[in-house]
Amino acid sequence: MSGWIAVAGLGPGAEALVTPEVSAALAEASDVVGYIPYVARVAPRAGLTLHPSDNRVELDRAALALTLAAEGRRVVIVSSGDPGVFAMASALFEALEAAPEHAGADIRILPGITAMLAAAARAGAPLGHDFCAINLSDNLKPFAVIERRLRAAIAGDFAMAFYNPRSKARPEGFARVLEILRAGCEPGRLITFARAVSTPDEALNTVTLAEARPEMADMRTVVLVGNSGTRRVGRWVYTPRGVKP
Amino acid sequence: MSGWIAVAGLGPGAEALVTPEVSAALAEASDVVGYIPYVARVAPRAGLTLHPSDNRVELDRAALALTLAAEGRRVVIVSSGDPGVFAMASALFEALEAAPEHAGADIRILPGITAMLAAAARAGAPLGHDFCAINLSDNLKPFAVIERRLRAAIAGDFAMAFYNPRSKARPEGFARVLEILRAGCEPGRLITFARAVSTPDEALNTVTLAEARPEMADMRTVVLVGNSGTRRVGRWVYTPRGVKP
Repeated sequence: MSGWIAVAGLGPGAEALVTPEVSAALAEASDVVGYIPYVARVAPRAGLTLHPSDNRVELDRAALALTLAAEGRRVVIVSSGDPGVFAMASALFEALEAAPEHAGADIRILPGITAMLAAAARAGAPLGHDFCAINLSDNLKPFAVIERRLRAAIAGDFAMAFYNPRSKARPEGFARVLEILRAGCEPGRLITFARAVSTPDEALNTVTLAEARPEMADMRTVVLVGNSGTRRVGRWVYTPRGVKP
Repeated sequence: MSGWIAVAGLGPGAEALVTPEVSAALAEASDVVGYIPYVARVAPRAGLTLHPSDNRVELDRAALALTLAAEGRRVVIVSSGDPGVFAMASALFEALEAAPEHAGADIRILPGITAMLAAAARAGAPLGHDFCAINLSDNLKPFAVIERRLRAAIAGDFAMAFYNPRSKARPEGFARVLEILRAGCEPGRLITFARAVSTPDEALNTVTLAEARPEMADMRTVVLVGNSGTRRVGRWVYTPRGVKP
């Protein structure tokens, strides 16, 4: 029996946003590996071993998956959202690079609905034109890189989506992000704080940049910043498709 | 009977990438509105009226959907990929803004698997760190805006995804994009040309920037450009999660 690894995106939370491809992989799996709250979204069943692990141990988790697959197990690594967006796919390839004995592993990456697109859909279409996705966590990169990318995104008049905007461990980072935005964008720039979209805890709040406060975000929030043309129509926020010459 | 509009993302092509939420909306619909090849992906059935229309008539299509919903119809506007990424959601809100008589319309946006994430999953994880999505079509914006955004994305060392890279009508645009990339990035920068991902016509081709040629892309291609740290491991391309200080 030959083992395999599927790195699967569970989407933002609702079952209705899990693709049939991901559901099929979970139905065939012998083992599910992932961060505790994501593994908790997989229904237990006979023949399925769950391997929940803590945050910040992505490389250990990936190494476990490679070992299990080499033993012939059918392993699904679960990510929230899409596995290729600030999630487990890159971690698996880092682990693969460090473990040449697993070079022949049978790997598939199964895309999912990433948080920024689920949040944008609830708000309207704030990412309806060119946009950037930036991870504001400075666990794996210096804040100077975040700042450089923010300034570039402002210079390019991109709409922006921020992942991991704020944690208890570093509340000052997001305050600094708002300062940088205020220095480069007009005060009426629209910002949507989208928390836990598609779960029972969902909450959306759209404000102007002048009104935005750091405490409007937590680690379950995706922050969507419009470009200079983003506007409201009724309860919706959208970015027009075109830019006039 | 009260009508509604759902703007639904069909994903990149495969049925296994259509969310259950979108399938449910299509099952309840009385009318499906959209660009001809996307409407062709919806199975005909009794009680369902299909309204396929040509490209570049997005506002007419959105106005039709608003009119049908006002008549009590259950309308799904279909987009390829995700409706909020260079697709019909923004067009619907533009039409809504122009038609205040429809201000009370019951609208939902249903996210889908957007082309860049399906393509990234096939390639590995080239968008595994901060990235930009840029529409290279100059139908609705001057090329100077595209150029400004490209330069900003290079300055920020973002990975990039390009939608609509090349058409018969303007083959020179993508050649110019490659020139701009060559001026700002190292020749070994990895670029993946991902064509028609998840369809029978799927084709992936990863080359270096030095090897990239304009004719490697057409309008069914999404182009993924790595950041300065993007690399290969075996047949995969991935962008590491971190940036070393």
